[in-house]
Amino acid sequence: MPDLYYFDCNATTPMGAAAREAWLEANDRHWANPSSLYREAGLAKQELDRWREELADRLGLEEPERIVFTSGATEANNAVIRYFLDTGRKRIAYSAIEHPCVDAAVKQWGDSEQVREIPVHSDTGVVDLAPLRDWIGDGEIDAVSVMAANNETGALQPWREVAALCREQGIPFHSDAAQWIGKMESGDFDGVDWITGSAHKFEGGKGCGFLVISEEELDRFHGLIGGPQEDGRRAGTENLPAVAGMVTALMGRSDEDLSDIAGVQSQRRDHFEAQVRDALGVRLLGDGGARLWNTSMFVLPHTRNAKWVSRLSQRGFAVSTGSACSSGRGNPSRVMAAMGLDYDEMGRVLRISGEWETPAAHWEALAGALVEIEKELQGQ
Amino acid sequence: MPDLYYFDCNATTPMGAAAREAWLEANDRHWANPSSLYREAGLAKQELDRWREELADRLGLEEPERIVFTSGATEANNAVIRYFLDTGRKRIAYSAIEHPCVDAAVKQWGDSEQVREIPVHSDTGVVDLAPLRDWIGDGEIDAVSVMAANNETGALQPWREVAALCREQGIPFHSDAAQWIGKMESGDFDGVDWITGSAHKFEGGKGCGFLVISEEELDRFHGLIGGPQEDGRRAGTENLPAVAGMVTALMGRSDEDLSDIAGVQSQRRDHFEAQVRDALGVRLLGDGGARLWNTSMFVLPHTRNAKWVSRLSQRGFAVSTGSACSSGRGNPSRVMAAMGLDYDEMGRVLRISGEWETPAAHWEALAGALVEIEKELQGQ
Repeated sequence: MPDLYYFDCNATTPMGAAAREAWLEANDRHWANPSSLYREAGLAKQELDRWREELADRLGLEEPERIVFTSGATEANNAVIRYFLDTGRKRIAYSAIEHPCVDAAVKQWGDSEQVREIPVHSDTGVVDLAPLRDWIGDGEIDAVSVMAANNETGALQPWREVAALCREQGIPFHSDAAQWIGKMESGDFDGVDWITGSAHKFEGGKGCGFLVISEEELDRFHGLIGGPQEDGRRAGTENLPAVAGMVTALMGRSDEDLSDIAGVQSQRRDHFEAQVRDALGVRLLGDGGARLWNTSMFVLPHTRNAKWVSRLSQRGFAVSTGSACSSGRGNPSRVMAAMGLDYDEMGRVLRISGEWETPAAHWEALAGALVEIEKELQGQ
Repeated sequence: MPDLYYFDCNATTPMGAAAREAWLEANDRHWANPSSLYREAGLAKQELDRWREELADRLGLEEPERIVFTSGATEANNAVIRYFLDTGRKRIAYSAIEHPCVDAAVKQWGDSEQVREIPVHSDTGVVDLAPLRDWIGDGEIDAVSVMAANNETGALQPWREVAALCREQGIPFHSDAAQWIGKMESGDFDGVDWITGSAHKFEGGKGCGFLVISEEELDRFHGLIGGPQEDGRRAGTENLPAVAGMVTALMGRSDEDLSDIAGVQSQRRDHFEAQVRDALGVRLLGDGGARLWNTSMFVLPHTRNAKWVSRLSQRGFAVSTGSACSSGRGNPSRVMAAMGLDYDEMGRVLRISGEWETPAAHWEALAGALVEIEKELQGQ
């Protein structure tokens, strides 16, 4: 894609060069079935375990066997919610801004009388810990699911605090970290019982993700069932090439690298936001709190967002009208509702999510294009 | 893998060259999220739909939208069984030789009082239609699942007859065709309501498969839930590169090609079987009926199969002790039990499953190696 100014990384990312190489090597050399008994199968099994160990190290997990590879975050999130419910943890507290693959799982499989939605502060987009603390203190909660960073606003959630709160009371805690892992420092996840990650959110390739399982439930959990792969925790022939790509992409940036990137990119993003706020009068969302360094979400001053996206696309910019999961479908986003937007405002939202190395000039160009388009649309 | 004589295709296969190219092209050019609204996203969506149409044509399906892409056969089989049960089809008849990802789903999620196991003829490994016909005639069945070809014996199942039987009575029929599609003529699947296929069984790459959905239940079915991908039938960002690889691999061999391959390879396999039967006195399984042209399963005359697999591996041959899904785990195979094997015999089973172009010399070499190993083991 020549001349693409890509600002939709929270939807998906291209596969990185090193990840692509790792995928090819695994695909070409270690395609044998890791569950078989001959030499080549054993080598594939060793490779799989090596990637599992590398990923565990990267996340700061002591036990690599806590990691189960999946086809992505949706499979992982569906599986953990289903597992909570199937094992009697019916009173799930989950935030009002969870991804649809957590939200739909809770709503469809859970009992609406028993599950509880944790509200968020509409200025920051951050979950409000006060009610959660009360519910937990009163013994009204069996399990908690709070994401690490929101896919739409980029708002960073207090997952470390929720983990500590849950640990004190012995309540299982799941954090969908699909938007966090690969963007933010990720070396201290050991205190979280259940963690979801997704490869294509960090240049690791499509169709791969993982679920970290609670140490205490290693012998009890399963997702897909059938064959004995992943020690019986996730049936289906292992997708070793995808795992190799995913872990390689994640290893490509250390926590230090990510911290440096966050510094550089958030400055560029902030400058961009100042420009569009001043020039267009956009209303920024979640900017009252800490956010992912790549994400900016705002309400445009006028005209439906789809028109802006289309005109930006003509100029080579790829941006989103919100989560890819709700874009183009007309169903209002729960996140936008939680941020206090009315229906009309929801139709004027843009989500910008940059890359790890987006040059300052691209952020500038995007701001310039928005100003141009505003004039065009104004003149109509 | 230099000098590998690969005879474990029913476990997995290497990705074919054309499939690999298609994967790379989609990965490099069409990595954008098909659900987004800008130009590159639209192109990715078009590509996805194009592959869906090609696959529909290949399977003889009139409606491409019946195809839902999944992460593989396990996800597809788990999903369809779960869906039957969730929509009140509790009285599922399924064969005694279904893959563990069907069997486990029925056993774990179904009610043992309501589900029924269809027996198989132990000489052929083929399901016995008589009891199924009676049950259906008596109105005792809500849904049927019978695989197209068995993964262990290779026995071809009467899926066309079961489809006709079910259609007459308006009962939904699912066929796990993971071992059939890509090996056998597959242009006439339109009469089957629900069909499972798996890319890595036909050189299409790991981590991809599909579920064909009944035309009548298009608006009702869903597997993974969350985002609106696959028209709400399977949430999760689409794995376009894997889909491109899968469909390319399948398109690479027409029904005519497969018919030719079946002629050539089954002759080589039969010759191999005659050699090992005469020289070693092995007991062939399922050879009383029609089988996949690449598969041979037999009981060795003595010594545990793992020892044979290991000695074969030292000579460069990759074979299996049975389904990869049960190998190395010590749990007896349901298929072997259905074929009438006792526990001791199960420990002496070998499964050979050749490639589309396995040279006669490789089949000869395998027979020769088995004869050599028999002498070695005899001499101990």
